[in-house]
Amino acid sequence: MDGKIALIEAGGTKFIVGVGDATRQIHARTRIDTTRPDETIPAAVDWLRAQGGEYVAVGIASFGPLDLDRASPTWGHITRTTKPHWSDADIARPFARAFGCPVMIDTDVNGAALAEWKWGAGQGMNSALYLTVGTGIGGGAVVGGRLIRGLSHPEMGHIRMPRHPADAGFAGHCPFHGDCLEGLAAGPSILARWGASLSDLPDDHIGHQVIAWYLAQAAQTFQAILEPARIILGGGVMATPGLLDRVRLEAATAAAGYFAGNVAEILVAPALGENTGLLGALALTEGPG
Amino acid sequence: MDGKIALIEAGGTKFIVGVGDATRQIHARTRIDTTRPDETIPAAVDWLRAQGGEYVAVGIASFGPLDLDRASPTWGHITRTTKPHWSDADIARPFARAFGCPVMIDTDVNGAALAEWKWGAGQGMNSALYLTVGTGIGGGAVVGGRLIRGLSHPEMGHIRMPRHPADAGFAGHCPFHGDCLEGLAAGPSILARWGASLSDLPDDHIGHQVIAWYLAQAAQTFQAILEPARIILGGGVMATPGLLDRVRLEAATAAAGYFAGNVAEILVAPALGENTGLLGALALTEGPG
Repeated sequence: MDGKIALIEAGGTKFIVGVGDATRQIHARTRIDTTRPDETIPAAVDWLRAQGGEYVAVGIASFGPLDLDRASPTWGHITRTTKPHWSDADIARPFARAFGCPVMIDTDVNGAALAEWKWGAGQGMNSALYLTVGTGIGGGAVVGGRLIRGLSHPEMGHIRMPRHPADAGFAGHCPFHGDCLEGLAAGPSILARWGASLSDLPDDHIGHQVIAWYLAQAAQTFQAILEPARIILGGGVMATPGLLDRVRLEAATAAAGYFAGNVAEILVAPALGENTGLLGALALTEGPG
Repeated sequence: MDGKIALIEAGGTKFIVGVGDATRQIHARTRIDTTRPDETIPAAVDWLRAQGGEYVAVGIASFGPLDLDRASPTWGHITRTTKPHWSDADIARPFARAFGCPVMIDTDVNGAALAEWKWGAGQGMNSALYLTVGTGIGGGAVVGGRLIRGLSHPEMGHIRMPRHPADAGFAGHCPFHGDCLEGLAAGPSILARWGASLSDLPDDHIGHQVIAWYLAQAAQTFQAILEPARIILGGGVMATPGLLDRVRLEAATAAAGYFAGNVAEILVAPALGENTGLLGALALTEGPG
């Protein structure tokens, strides 16, 4: 695909907007605070117009949940979210109208999964799962060259979990499910239990062990269902020094050698760095394969 | 595909062998006890020869775990199993040699998932997951018209699970993982706890509630990762009267309306009846789509 591609990483705190091309160059980028749809989206459109305004495609990797059914009248809308003003916001059509070109939209984690599989830590593999562990937990997976999707996109943070023996008293922090994975291992649950982020807790604090154990149990569940060749662990919590190694150790114990491959090779860090979001949006414009 | 198709449902207790065709007629079938590979497989070959011996394809839906990598020297072999004599048994090549035609092999649950999606309870859906709950628990899933597979086929019985409050004292029955789904909800775990199968326990026995709760938690995990349009629950334990309805009830509570679709419509019984195994083998010979 020749020509410039408009890229939007739509997050709950900020929109990162950029201009890229098929060679994966990012020519320009900016940051726009996520306030209200009728402010943030026009600001993104205006900035893209100011960069020249001619685009062959728009790629949007967005927070969710999203309606991704192309046949639906609310395709490209955020569905219901606890984020004020953004329920039912149309993220896709304002860009289609402004630039008159194809718009591809998917979740931020699906974009990241696709980009990491095409160009990053999952390159050359038959399957790769990307999980972000931060303020929330979400994931996407590429299997046989395609993002998996059923009735909707995955909501991988909401899998059910066993409880760490040292953590039995904590109710969990998910407003929907209490002690699902997100309720037990996302940033706010760490803060709720121990009053600090994982990277601010001392090395020998039990929190490191508990969170690594939960992520290892989650990895086992992902292996049992998808047997991904790579499970790529990103997000703010995963930036905690030593955490990935702890997860690998716990995962090897939990899985008891039952699944294909070596879990220490399967569990990896992302490879694309700070441009993952925009590269995710770019990967979406290329489609599968 | 014209002509006769040799069909093998290779189970740990019995092989069901049949002759079918592309119209889904099963012309003949027999049962061969699963003893040792050097007895059972030649007996299956002999029976197929006696039916005429000309086949355009062989479909095998087998117990596992299996090596399904076509490029591997041990493609079509059982890998390691606790079943005596069957570790490293070659299930596929003896049929290829005997009949000189293409052999398709996959797990029994992948075959069932494909057949139920093509012709049964998942027909017309963009995705369907088949789970058998019996002596063991296993599953397969069709997403976007294809069976999902990563480094290997799924082992869905081995997902990690929360514990039912009334079941906290039970260690779990899986030799590998203790209290994974199979360790908590398969037939032997029911027998180990309550000394009878679920269908032999009185209607008001807590076992019904506990097992339904576990299967509902598993359904939530499957929804979070795959959002399947149908989760088809088969196997001996699921034949317990009232169990499917109990699972639906528990699942609606657990998921808290978070996932797409109505879980009471998503959770369904299989539609193909006693021929599921052979129809699974047949579906495998047709390939995807």
